Amino acid sequence: MMRRSAGPESPLTPPTAFEEVFAALPLLHPTPRSWAELAAANLPEFLADHAVCEQQVAVYALSLAGYYPEDPELVDRAAALAAEEVQHFRRVVAILRKRGWPLGGRRKNPWAQALRAQIVPGREPWTKVDRLLFGAMIEARSCERFTRLLEVIENQDPEVAHLLADLGPAERRHWELFHRLAGREIDAKALAVRFQRWREFEADLARGLGISPAVHGRNLAPSWCPSPSRRHARG
Amino acid sequence: MMRRSAGPESPLTPPTAFEEVFAALPLLHPTPRSWAELAAANLPEFLADHAVCEQQVAVYALSLAGYYPEDPELVDRAAALAAEEVQHFRRVVAILRKRGWPLGGRRKNPWAQALRAQIVPGREPWTKVDRLLFGAMIEARSCERFTRLLEVIENQDPEVAHLLADLGPAERRHWELFHRLAGREIDAKALAVRFQRWREFEADLARGLGISPAVHGRNLAPSWCPSPSRRHARG
Repeated sequence: MMRRSAGPESPLTPPTAFEEVFAALPLLHPTPRSWAELAAANLPEFLADHAVCEQQVAVYALSLAGYYPEDPELVDRAAALAAEEVQHFRRVVAILRKRGWPLGGRRKNPWAQALRAQIVPGREPWTKVDRLLFGAMIEARSCERFTRLLEVIENQDPEVAHLLADLGPAERRHWELFHRLAGREIDAKALAVRFQRWREFEADLARGLGISPAVHGRNLAPSWCPSPSRRHARG
Repeated sequence: MMRRSAGPESPLTPPTAFEEVFAALPLLHPTPRSWAELAAANLPEFLADHAVCEQQVAVYALSLAGYYPEDPELVDRAAALAAEEVQHFRRVVAILRKRGWPLGGRRKNPWAQALRAQIVPGREPWTKVDRLLFGAMIEARSCERFTRLLEVIENQDPEVAHLLADLGPAERRHWELFHRLAGREIDAKALAVRFQRWREFEADLARGLGISPAVHGRNLAPSWCPSPSRRHARG
């Protein structure tokens, strides 16, 4: 993937690869390029965090199959997605290993935690819809961040650039998959309304994130912690 | 795998395939053949339970990688094992699907819960050793049950027999792997003592299990529930 413009400030230059990818994602707040510069300067930390993200998405996908065993398409897709994410995890671990960089262990991801806290169990079909739209937001933001970072490191670290160039499109497939699966449960208008709430909530979170080299940013300001009232509690 | 003897009661007949497999496992209590007959008569329930077991082992393996990111061999092996178990899950799901049998959702597995309750967090190296020996016991008992069931259904259901004939040896590899990984943490004698406790505890549990078509039996009698004192709490 190549940036097509060296002058993103000019209104006459064509959009960058990042801008094209962003336009096709359901995100309302673009990650600033300064995040990618920080992540590029701290690649060991970024990659270690990324590995844990892959591992956690694999576990999440398996949990979805456990929640909805009576939904054959969801089970098949979730299992295939889990298998793919485990392979991504192994691929990131192999790069860390080769470079002598430590793999991180479990750590807090306040962005993902705040999103996940919006899911209220036991209110089907909304719980299922929200579990899938949560997955869609996770994958969409990962796709966006990988694309952002790729812009910065593509000439600096070909191995990681190659990884990101492969994983970005995979994450794009995954958000579309989660969104499509959610759309089987409710009509198109209800889905659009529900997804819009997720998009806005996620954008608020992303704006409030401190910049750190992690995949989703950390250092969530206290004011962005999920409120006990759970905005999305009612379907 | 073929049974080599039609008369297991006679002391002069060669051992059955089951007896040979059992002799190489760390189990102290053989599953009675009556369990396999019940499971064979209730294959939909057995397979649905089996699928969930595969899914849960995959999640457990990923959690091990998350607990011990600084252990490259453990991370690599656990990730490979998770990938393998996800493929087993998909294979079992495909058989269920083809036959129109429902996939079960999350359910209690009192045998696995009672075993897992023996692991006391925060007491390294014992916690790590116990997490690995717990994995060894899970895989060893699964191997044993698959072999037991294979004896009964090999002429009755070639497709499931083929599955079990593939998965039994995989489970055997896995218990040996977990046991070997545990052996890197403590000396051979301490490992043998620790593992002996797991073997005895698991045999007590297995003896106390009601017979049901589930992979590990269910209907645990109340007297077999783990006591709050946690027998294995001290290393």
